[in-house]
Amino acid sequence: MAHDAALKDLSSLLGDALTLSKSDLDLHGRSESHFPDTPPDAVAYPRSTEEVAAIVRICAAHGCPVVGWGTGTSLEGQSQAVQGGVVVDFSRMDRVIEVNQADMDVRVQPGVTREALNAELRATGLFFPVDPGANASLGGMASTRASGTTAVRYGTMRDNVLGLEVVLADGRVIRTGTRARKSSAGYDLTGLFVGAEGTLGLITELTLRLQGQPEAISAAVCAFDDIGAAVQAVIDTIQMGIPMARIEFVDTASVRAVNAYADMSLPQKPHLLVEFHGSEGGVAEQAESFGAIVAEHGGSDFQWAQKPEDRTALWKMRHNAFYAILALRPGCRSIVTDVCVPISRLAEAVEATIADLEAHDVTGPILGHVGDGNFHAILMFDPADAAEEARALAAAGRMVDRALALGGTSTGEHGIGLGKRGYMAREHGDGWEVMGSVKRALDPNDIMNPGKLVPDP
Amino acid sequence: MAHDAALKDLSSLLGDALTLSKSDLDLHGRSESHFPDTPPDAVAYPRSTEEVAAIVRICAAHGCPVVGWGTGTSLEGQSQAVQGGVVVDFSRMDRVIEVNQADMDVRVQPGVTREALNAELRATGLFFPVDPGANASLGGMASTRASGTTAVRYGTMRDNVLGLEVVLADGRVIRTGTRARKSSAGYDLTGLFVGAEGTLGLITELTLRLQGQPEAISAAVCAFDDIGAAVQAVIDTIQMGIPMARIEFVDTASVRAVNAYADMSLPQKPHLLVEFHGSEGGVAEQAESFGAIVAEHGGSDFQWAQKPEDRTALWKMRHNAFYAILALRPGCRSIVTDVCVPISRLAEAVEATIADLEAHDVTGPILGHVGDGNFHAILMFDPADAAEEARALAAAGRMVDRALALGGTSTGEHGIGLGKRGYMAREHGDGWEVMGSVKRALDPNDIMNPGKLVPDP
Repeated sequence: MAHDAALKDLSSLLGDALTLSKSDLDLHGRSESHFPDTPPDAVAYPRSTEEVAAIVRICAAHGCPVVGWGTGTSLEGQSQAVQGGVVVDFSRMDRVIEVNQADMDVRVQPGVTREALNAELRATGLFFPVDPGANASLGGMASTRASGTTAVRYGTMRDNVLGLEVVLADGRVIRTGTRARKSSAGYDLTGLFVGAEGTLGLITELTLRLQGQPEAISAAVCAFDDIGAAVQAVIDTIQMGIPMARIEFVDTASVRAVNAYADMSLPQKPHLLVEFHGSEGGVAEQAESFGAIVAEHGGSDFQWAQKPEDRTALWKMRHNAFYAILALRPGCRSIVTDVCVPISRLAEAVEATIADLEAHDVTGPILGHVGDGNFHAILMFDPADAAEEARALAAAGRMVDRALALGGTSTGEHGIGLGKRGYMAREHGDGWEVMGSVKRALDPNDIMNPGKLVPDP
Repeated sequence: MAHDAALKDLSSLLGDALTLSKSDLDLHGRSESHFPDTPPDAVAYPRSTEEVAAIVRICAAHGCPVVGWGTGTSLEGQSQAVQGGVVVDFSRMDRVIEVNQADMDVRVQPGVTREALNAELRATGLFFPVDPGANASLGGMASTRASGTTAVRYGTMRDNVLGLEVVLADGRVIRTGTRARKSSAGYDLTGLFVGAEGTLGLITELTLRLQGQPEAISAAVCAFDDIGAAVQAVIDTIQMGIPMARIEFVDTASVRAVNAYADMSLPQKPHLLVEFHGSEGGVAEQAESFGAIVAEHGGSDFQWAQKPEDRTALWKMRHNAFYAILALRPGCRSIVTDVCVPISRLAEAVEATIADLEAHDVTGPILGHVGDGNFHAILMFDPADAAEEARALAAAGRMVDRALALGGTSTGEHGIGLGKRGYMAREHGDGWEVMGSVKRALDPNDIMNPGKLVPDP
């Protein structure tokens, strides 16, 4: 077996907390996406930073790959052990270490999920705002630079991680950032590890910014005749400085799926879903201003959801849209891809994508975080139909081409992993080589999540 | 002369745009701070990215140091050519290249100052919010990760730079980031170069986020019996989610200086200065909520400044506080130092600093960006009195010790340069070595602003 010597030392270190059982390896070889399964050689379940450091030191001594694992919900194959080795599953490092109410921050272990954190915070009046949909681990969300529906107001993981503890490729442990709100003290190492997808080190602790739970929340849904009108309403809203907490776009195909899945009867048009957070007066004012903008752009079927249960229903519908779309074709699989463009080019990007999918006979409803210019297509294919899968993959590639041509990026929030690595040279030019130089400087033997994100060594 | 061969090639390249005149070298050897003058061997005035890349290629071939220069307003000696070489003065690269109204972003050359940019933006309804006080260049502000009075609302340069063009140490030109609002496409190179103080490359273009000019602005000043009450009022305000655009603290010594300088009669107590941005209704609501919090904490002498001229007077007073403080002792010099702590420890940090300065006979009024936990002390000394200068420097060191002990950072916004380099190992531990590894990977011959920020090679 590969990496025998490493596994022997790891087994001495971890005992039961290292598993080689087939079912566990299989479970940690899968992704939520369309990549081939790649079971690792072993799965380790550390309970402390010291154990993680010891694991990495053993792997470094033997040249054995080390791949971090949160909840396995990444969408570009980030956690797949494509060169074998050890998957480090952080599910047993799931403690909320310290909530600082006055400073509105929290220290957590990487295995804490965002829902578990918010459950723990409920009584404090604070919450952690980043919401990628999946109940992902916070270590995984940081590693992927996740964002989601609330980024338009509260930012992405880049903006909400104050500091990290990281185990480096040689087993050294460093702390980045501080509990201060800002710092000019040298290179932004926190920012370097956020989004590095475990290729530079393993995150073993995070200090996160929290937000005050808003006094009032109000949400709404409305329909537009076309995508251009919906996007222009969003642009006007942003320019007026109306602080939306969420503003989501769903295309007509997604609306059809949701109607069928949840027995709803939304008009078959593009929709916006919005949410405002603030004081009672502030939310009312925001809602009124937004309503006026929507009317100017021909928005219709405006429905407010002010009661908590109505709001919950609204966002459940949005979060379930993925499943609603999959339910359109039972047994299908999907490429869930995302790109992000300047908002002025969003309508153009979405319309061109819809036309392209139609032209190439690919089913792919579109939805996204319109306030950020970020949208997803869920490109469905029959796993038994290789030609259809190839068409879907090619369409995903053209989405990236289009995003780059419009001044955007190959991924707004899903990350690179395996799926987007082929576009890195085109997006970054020599900047991709710079990423490779940074990688070689911090992980010269290429043991941290090898085969991902950076150029081959 | 040192670097003769490099200067000869640079002179062929640049002609008149390379100067070796003593007055120009002297001007580019000074800082606004207390460091010894270090005139460079030459000053280059490039007009384009291509010229900057050619300069760097020549310097790389000859091992000649390259130091970027914006407006020379950095406070920790960042632009001083401590190992000689060429200072690259960006003052002729001062074009606003493109304003994108719909996307609320702008592309600028690095020599554009923040005031020049805002003058250019006035008619657009947009503005660039980061305000460090000095009319610094945007390239310099990015390189220092500057912030200032508005960071509590709009963030620092870290948050407001979307992308960069950078000339690397070997003359390659890369573009980082995109015009999309967010990206998960690999390492955050934009964030790596922001705050790198020119040690990894020279910034030749910036894409910056803009904000909508607020419909309404309201500002106020109020006094507190002690620092603890003022800080607690700020903590409560943040926790209530009241979106302050600025919230500044000035201590009693600063108030005395301002009163004397501007013939004012503010009560001799700690003060807060605040500003709210928003809609008419929003600002009125925020002001009312803030007033209630201030009253709870014994705030008094509350004065609103709603008219633009009153607001201008208020912030002019704040921005002139530095000169007011220097005017306390004509002929003195000062160490303008800054630290940043978790806001819950701010009162403690400021009070301990005041006590320490008194105990060691150092004059040093304190003011700062209280919403971020960031404060400055202006430690004055007679340049002819070496003992007093040594006492001031030692007091600055103890401020850092205290900030680190309280979970903070050695600098919130002034950066490392020469002045804070001695604290890097203590603040970052092995993280400082990681910064050194990144530096060596990108600049193996140590020509980019050598002697700053990272460990000696």
